Amino acid sequence: MPIDISARFAFHLDQPTDLLLQFEAAAIPEQKILSSETRLAEAMHVARVPAQDSIGERIWVRALGDYSVEYSARVAVERLAPELGSLAMVDPHELPGEAVGYLFDSRYCQADRMQSFVADRFGKLEGGAKVAAMRDWIAENFHYVPGASTPNTTALDSFVERRGICRDYAHVLVTFARASTIPARYVACYAPGVEPQDFHAVAEVFLNDPTAPGGGAWYLVDATGMADPAKTAKIGIGRDAADVSFLTSFGLSRFDSSEVQVTETK
Amino acid sequence: MPIDISARFAFHLDQPTDLLLQFEAAAIPEQKILSSETRLAEAMHVARVPAQDSIGERIWVRALGDYSVEYSARVAVERLAPELGSLAMVDPHELPGEAVGYLFDSRYCQADRMQSFVADRFGKLEGGAKVAAMRDWIAENFHYVPGASTPNTTALDSFVERRGICRDYAHVLVTFARASTIPARYVACYAPGVEPQDFHAVAEVFLNDPTAPGGGAWYLVDATGMADPAKTAKIGIGRDAADVSFLTSFGLSRFDSSEVQVTETK
Amino acid sequence: MPIDISARFAFHLDQPTDLLLQFEAAAIPEQKILSSETRLAEAMHVARVPAQDSIGERIWVRALGDYSVEYSARVAVERLAPELGSLAMVDPHELPGEAVGYLFDSRYCQADRMQSFVADRFGKLEGGAKVAAMRDWIAENFHYVPGASTPNTTALDSFVERRGICRDYAHVLVTFARASTIPARYVACYAPGVEPQDFHAVAEVFLNDPTAPGGGAWYLVDATGMADPAKTAKIGIGRDAADVSFLTSFGLSRFDSSEVQVTETK
Amino acid sequence: MPIDISARFAFHLDQPTDLLLQFEAAAIPEQKILSSETRLAEAMHVARVPAQDSIGERIWVRALGDYSVEYSARVAVERLAPELGSLAMVDPHELPGEAVGYLFDSRYCQADRMQSFVADRFGKLEGGAKVAAMRDWIAENFHYVPGASTPNTTALDSFVERRGICRDYAHVLVTFARASTIPARYVACYAPGVEPQDFHAVAEVFLNDPTAPGGGAWYLVDATGMADPAKTAKIGIGRDAADVSFLTSFGLSRFDSSEVQVTETK
Repeated sequence: MPIDISARFAFHLDQPTDLLLQFEAAAIPEQKILSSETRLAEAMHVARVPAQDSIGERIWVRALGDYSVEYSARVAVERLAPELGSLAMVDPHELPGEAVGYLFDSRYCQADRMQSFVADRFGKLEGGAKVAAMRDWIAENFHYVPGASTPNTTALDSFVERRGICRDYAHVLVTFARASTIPARYVACYAPGVEPQDFHAVAEVFLNDPTAPGGGAWYLVDATGMADPAKTAKIGIGRDAADVSFLTSFGLSRFDSSEVQVTETK
Repeated sequence: MPIDISARFAFHLDQPTDLLLQFEAAAIPEQKILSSETRLAEAMHVARVPAQDSIGERIWVRALGDYSVEYSARVAVERLAPELGSLAMVDPHELPGEAVGYLFDSRYCQADRMQSFVADRFGKLEGGAKVAAMRDWIAENFHYVPGASTPNTTALDSFVERRGICRDYAHVLVTFARASTIPARYVACYAPGVEPQDFHAVAEVFLNDPTAPGGGAWYLVDATGMADPAKTAKIGIGRDAADVSFLTSFGLSRFDSSEVQVTETK
Repeated sequence: MPIDISARFAFHLDQPTDLLLQFEAAAIPEQKILSSETRLAEAMHVARVPAQDSIGERIWVRALGDYSVEYSARVAVERLAPELGSLAMVDPHELPGEAVGYLFDSRYCQADRMQSFVADRFGKLEGGAKVAAMRDWIAENFHYVPGASTPNTTALDSFVERRGICRDYAHVLVTFARASTIPARYVACYAPGVEPQDFHAVAEVFLNDPTAPGGGAWYLVDATGMADPAKTAKIGIGRDAADVSFLTSFGLSRFDSSEVQVTETK
Repeated sequence: MPIDISARFAFHLDQPTDLLLQFEAAAIPEQKILSSETRLAEAMHVARVPAQDSIGERIWVRALGDYSVEYSARVAVERLAPELGSLAMVDPHELPGEAVGYLFDSRYCQADRMQSFVADRFGKLEGGAKVAAMRDWIAENFHYVPGASTPNTTALDSFVERRGICRDYAHVLVTFARASTIPARYVACYAPGVEPQDFHAVAEVFLNDPTAPGGGAWYLVDATGMADPAKTAKIGIGRDAADVSFLTSFGLSRFDSSEVQVTETK
């Protein structure tokens, strides 16, 4: 069953500024873009580049003054979502090079500093069962409070404050997984059922793929519990929110508004 | 004229622990490995994987107890080192996808938070001249003080404290460049002339390549002024020190000692 | 010439919560409260305690639901405001015990980490001339941007970001002074000429008192340049904003609005 | 039964530097200084001032080059140490002004950011029973690891890393208590039984005094479990370690060594 996505956002630039936008559902095997329409306000120039790991595209825009973006799409998600607890860990030395990069600390996910907590709390579990326990621990110990965090909030901040939004929940889960030598990345996405409706974010962990012996695959995990992996449309991925924001401004910008609607197609 | 490298380091692990090591000069076109020898202590297992952007290799080791590494090599560096001030910027929307990733904030280089300072201080300059001014500003305003920083020290910490070592100088330069929309990465390397002798680190920025019109290339810049790009052997690169440490431990380890000697071959 | 103050603010408490309020002009020798009126919404209880160093009062309130405060006053300020540059430093070992406490690091003013910068930049100056240079340096290098900082923003954050409001300017000045072994504290105040009109904050430094040989006194310094010390009504003082907020909530509260008007009496 | 204290420490100053030292057991009613000897190396000048809340003394020293301090004392501690769990909370609005100041955030104890965690974890308990649960929670969840923290480590850092020394344990306990509207301060002290032997630190909380109806008193609490309040000699108190270090240097200093021995007199 496809999902219907509608998003728009607007911002203002006091002087000519370079921006990277990434807001379109990615055209990748696990999700088919049935239809889509992107409307960008007029800009000094626009250019597309492949996004991280070639999942989706980033759009360079150089603009001035008021700027707005509108996007709508229908996406058929065909993602397998196996029971997380059944998935084994991939031994670190058997990880493919591309997954190894997602073990390292990043802007918002300083995993090295959480090794002691993670070992004490989750050390007796393995693989997918460990990740499931991390997800449940976050769900139980955090409060979902829009406005409680800022763009500077890191996973460590969130761990201290125990409050945040999807971005913060995903950062903490990514951090826990990496501290446990499980590669983890951040996924910007659209998903029905997110309250309040907005751009959404979840984590993705690299675990054994039971359908391909000896191999591994990335699995979506949402510590907020709001998104169903089988109905989630990925925009892009990155080490954390620094890599895959819908709007990255290389200069000062004033964000004005955004509006997102995601529904299951009837 | 080649350089001779000799390095050894040792650490202790209280329980079986996975480690990533990266300490060998990379086999890449700009430097030829004339000879090399690596001696790893016995481990529970050892596996090599390509390192970031396929520059050099990382070595997975699973070990317990005392562990030591010895490495020696002779490397012929054939790197062009054009006058930095003569290099033009590559317009953001013309950057190749692989360089775009080095514009984003990373663990130790939170460039978004320095946009205001960088615009005020360096905003009137362009391209290589701007990077050269950043390098000189750091050299003038920082004190090289071994022991003044820790593995947690970020570029923002260093900017406040105005003290640090090569790692910190490189982080600040990377941060300044990114805040100015110039891709920048962190380079672990060996270089003669580093005082005190140790593993070294410099920055690398992506600017126009005058020998390939329309294209860009990475250029080494050392804000400490100790390393000559034409005599520097790269170990590997990353967004910052989180990606390219000679020792990344996924569990608690106790570092015991390291010793590095780099000399120009006579 | 007196000043007229009018302030109101409102907030909401989801459950019974203890709050400390401090918003009234202090009754101290250097300013006379000609008239004043305070209206507190009904509370579960209200109690007054002397505020820090007995300058002004704090009001304990235990309340639930919507809560609002209204305050108006006419205050005659009789503060001497000597030329800052003419004031000598008090030697640390001659400081009175009460001033010594304002040399230490506090929540938002981590002076120890800025000793190197302060020594390099201002080390050749002494006493009031040094403080004046610090004030002018901040005025020159910072942008006054309402909304650019949060209640978590420290002086180090502000030093990095070069943007903030009166609170941030005062924190940076306090930090610089302490890093130079000059006692400095944070002053919450009302002042005409503040744009946009709001609660204001400035720094106060302890320097030699030329009218009392061998002694010292506290002198107001406003790095934003908006407040005239001779027309500023102090509310209270503290090590930094943590001590002297108009609203400190010991539990979660939702701030709704505030409105401040300060004018010179005609 | 008295305790015998012996301490010495040494450091080096490259240029004339002002220092504050605080290392002597305080002469206060709850502990009698039976004998003591302080030997300070020669300095450019030395001056004593009362320390915070008049508990103990700070010593100003202006010195250059190598500097050392030796101290020995015999102290009879006569401190009541009631069962913590039996002590009631003092209602915030009944706190004396001097205790109110210890509710605010300080350099290393940013209590506002931990209100959510503290309410969730300890919210159903009251007064001394709540503090005892905080102490036990820290003891259970932290690892005592000399060298795992630095002078910059805050309570939030320690809460994330779950490792530290007495200073860190005390900071976390102070932070938890304040987040729960219980005044808490930091106590530098000497105590037998501390392993490894060193300067020690504990927390002190303000709770009801059953011997003085309507009043409150400060009670020592050691989350490390190493010090017995009935045998602990206080050096001084402060909001946190920033206020009551044995060595606060207003300029760069190089710490060389320290040695502390505390034993029960036989």
